[in-house]
Amino acid sequence: MAQLEVTLGVDIGGTNTVFGYVDRSGRVVSESSIPTQAHEPASVFFKRLHAAAEALLAGIKEDCRLMGIGIGAPNANHFKCTIESPPNLSWVFVDVAAEMKQYYTVPVSLTNDANAAALGEMLFGAAKGMRDFIVITLGTGLGSGLVANGEMIYGADSFAGEIGHTTVDPNGRACGCGRKGCLETYASATGICRTMLELMCDRMDASRLRSIPPDKITSHLVFDAAQQGDVLAIEAFEMTGRTLGAKLAESVVHTSPEAIILVGGLAAAGDLIFKPTKRSMEEHLLNIFRNKVKILPSGLKEGNTAVLGASALIWDILDKTKH
Amino acid sequence: MAQLEVTLGVDIGGTNTVFGYVDRSGRVVSESSIPTQAHEPASVFFKRLHAAAEALLAGIKEDCRLMGIGIGAPNANHFKCTIESPPNLSWVFVDVAAEMKQYYTVPVSLTNDANAAALGEMLFGAAKGMRDFIVITLGTGLGSGLVANGEMIYGADSFAGEIGHTTVDPNGRACGCGRKGCLETYASATGICRTMLELMCDRMDASRLRSIPPDKITSHLVFDAAQQGDVLAIEAFEMTGRTLGAKLAESVVHTSPEAIILVGGLAAAGDLIFKPTKRSMEEHLLNIFRNKVKILPSGLKEGNTAVLGASALIWDILDKTKH
Repeated sequence: MAQLEVTLGVDIGGTNTVFGYVDRSGRVVSESSIPTQAHEPASVFFKRLHAAAEALLAGIKEDCRLMGIGIGAPNANHFKCTIESPPNLSWVFVDVAAEMKQYYTVPVSLTNDANAAALGEMLFGAAKGMRDFIVITLGTGLGSGLVANGEMIYGADSFAGEIGHTTVDPNGRACGCGRKGCLETYASATGICRTMLELMCDRMDASRLRSIPPDKITSHLVFDAAQQGDVLAIEAFEMTGRTLGAKLAESVVHTSPEAIILVGGLAAAGDLIFKPTKRSMEEHLLNIFRNKVKILPSGLKEGNTAVLGASALIWDILDKTKH
Repeated sequence: MAQLEVTLGVDIGGTNTVFGYVDRSGRVVSESSIPTQAHEPASVFFKRLHAAAEALLAGIKEDCRLMGIGIGAPNANHFKCTIESPPNLSWVFVDVAAEMKQYYTVPVSLTNDANAAALGEMLFGAAKGMRDFIVITLGTGLGSGLVANGEMIYGADSFAGEIGHTTVDPNGRACGCGRKGCLETYASATGICRTMLELMCDRMDASRLRSIPPDKITSHLVFDAAQQGDVLAIEAFEMTGRTLGAKLAESVVHTSPEAIILVGGLAAAGDLIFKPTKRSMEEHLLNIFRNKVKILPSGLKEGNTAVLGASALIWDILDKTKH
């Protein structure tokens, strides 16, 4: 029987690390997870990861050949293959290349989650066959991955794609980055909760969310309320889409993407977020770009997204070095 | 004697078309110009261009071999090699590839002036050896050319790089594009004249420009006044730089360039425009990008810029297809 070529895709999260073996067609052959336990040294983590990945591989019935390893992680430096001062992880600096070299001889590549998501969509999802597109991840923050000419844009220092930190209002909401009015303080899971508070302040309409302490309001609660006709919750999605769409119109004039793909928690709200975003983007677009740029949901199956993205990172490199 | 490989670089302007033969090192071997006379059909123009370019070639003492032709023009569609509804030219649609094929068998490529300027800087100027940078042309409007991974970003429809139409203020100055508050209404040769008017309205300081009719104020007059200590003219440069720098900070988070190169008429003002632009960009940058992005003047000799840019367009293609 011929060997099945697979890559290992790893997504390092604050609580759990998911990983899986993925073939060139984007099929997740097998998948598992371990707790990240970032209070322990990174070397302990990579040892546990290797053991768990080997055990998973041993359990696969097909005869697999490991071609490479792709890793998605917060604050990843793609060029240096290092993780630097990651939020939610107590590691200060991790030389991922050196850690992995102790266990593997295959190529290893590292990038942040938003770039991995973009590559996942390009190889296996909604951006299949596209050479120019942008992926926006609407999670706790707003991440982005830009692809032009079929290549990920890493930029001079590998930190390109921080659209979440373009400015909506220089006197606006405080951002975790220390500045004010960044896009991600409006358009993200936490952003929509802040918008909900703004609406409860500015307007007098009744809302079921008025009975919930502000620090207990989640984007899921706002979504549920909107689904059930809560006027302010619906307006919160409208405002989020309007703000996001206006700023996406500015991203379009930079790279002229064929599509912008919205993924992550808030994107799961579907029309509630897609419709106002699309409408606002079209309103704000320079005329030569109007009615050209698609706004699409992820083309990846829910759940495997992070593993597929990380695996796509290394498949993309293997594909390009073949020639 | 060995043949000298040259390309023909052509820059089609509203009044004049300049063209010249350029070798691979960026030396302009010979250069000339003809009036564009766009009131005549485009076919007449290309016939005249061919005759003039042949005459110029015949006058060169070295034995030249023409490798290709690069053309910079307004509203150029790079992918289709067409010019569509160009401003300041009465041609509605020109199939440049078809026109040139009547006279030449070598490769022909077309793009807009800002992209040509970016390629000129990459091959022969300030961006030599850089793979990620942005060129901003500060002329009548604000044009831009973005390069990532060593490749020009044309985007899905070849119109990428319209940073002049990002929004400074949604309720701001009317823009030629039909919208309001676009960056180019503030940061360009015409933008600084409008800023001068705003300052003469808002402030009471004396200014020599108060005695000049608004439609006679040029960026050169503002520059001359600033040079001679005119308080409002100096402030006009400050405001222009502040606005430009703040928006460039938003471009940086998109593509993480190694440098941003300011070229064109207004960039000739030197420190008057570079200093406030750099200061404002740093103030507005996300921390991970601070003190990393250079703001540079053109590395091309004045005068040959447009010809070198157009020639770089085709040299870049010839270089890349060699492999």
